[in-house]
Amino acid sequence: MEGGAGAVESGERTRIMVGVNESTIKGYPHASISSKGAFDWTLSKIVRSNTSSFTLLFLHVQVPDQDGFDDMDSIYASPDDFKKLNHKNKIKGLHLLEYFVNRCHEIGVPCEAWIKRGDPKEVICHEVNRVQPDLLVVGSRGLGPFQRVFVGTVSEFCAKHAECPVITIKRKVDEAPQDPIDD
Amino acid sequence: MEGGAGAVESGERTRIMVGVNESTIKGYPHASISSKGAFDWTLSKIVRSNTSSFTLLFLHVQVPDQDGFDDMDSIYASPDDFKKLNHKNKIKGLHLLEYFVNRCHEIGVPCEAWIKRGDPKEVICHEVNRVQPDLLVVGSRGLGPFQRVFVGTVSEFCAKHAECPVITIKRKVDEAPQDPIDD
Repeated sequence: MEGGAGAVESGERTRIMVGVNESTIKGYPHASISSKGAFDWTLSKIVRSNTSSFTLLFLHVQVPDQDGFDDMDSIYASPDDFKKLNHKNKIKGLHLLEYFVNRCHEIGVPCEAWIKRGDPKEVICHEVNRVQPDLLVVGSRGLGPFQRVFVGTVSEFCAKHAECPVITIKRKVDEAPQDPIDD
Repeated sequence: MEGGAGAVESGERTRIMVGVNESTIKGYPHASISSKGAFDWTLSKIVRSNTSSFTLLFLHVQVPDQDGFDDMDSIYASPDDFKKLNHKNKIKGLHLLEYFVNRCHEIGVPCEAWIKRGDPKEVICHEVNRVQPDLLVVGSRGLGPFQRVFVGTVSEFCAKHAECPVITIKRKVDEAPQDPIDD
């Protein structure tokens, strides 16, 4: 039998990587609307009650410039000051991941979560390559072509370049904030 | 609770539409390598043993010119001849769908299957709109940019235009035939 009916009984868990980021409105430690949407969709449509068959892998990519912006007024006089800054950002990222990890624990889905720094679209594709998940789920603000020119979408890049199947979950219309660029 | 842990216990089945077509090498009633790949992936990575939580919806779109090609040497003298041709093609399509429906029955996954005629990429998007599945899965030959210029890919169009999340499953490298345009 090609592929085989037995494929359904495959022993190893399905490993789903979910790219998550912080809200542009509320900032850390709040997750963006589209990250939450992608996560909720994955739970309700894919994992469902079959919690023992999946592992969720949460990746948060911190953008160095953007995430350091709050600290622009600080004075950096020594290398230690930068270390402190990195530490502070790391803690912010951890609080963001905490939301997703807590939800998984409540439900009983095994998960892992980690932080990387860099350009989100490139880091996500690099991590897909390294970790080799079965599936990558990314949220999207669902912007129109005009808005996309200015913001560039991580989801579009990943769908094209990630070396695994990718699902893009568009934000629900009723969840979009007043300015659709926000998330 | 936002979204809610309860989302995992959602009562309604997850409805996954799978676009399937015939093999370019073996013709009807054989399914293409990429269709089978998309189907097997869906079973082994998403449905797994949770067969009662999913419904698979198989859509086969017949391309009028392409699928009538075998009958080019026939003589059509009356409208009835065309009816017979349509009937013949319909039966070919049914045999293709039979493969997927049989596999689902063996495994115990509820399914539906139907045939439409037209341009596959447009018909698939139209059917997504009409049927409103939770997810569309399409196979892809995984062609490079140079080859894609000539063949146009259904999967790329659907990923862009279908009004539901889309997963594109690329054909495995070791399953590709000598000419990658074949499937």
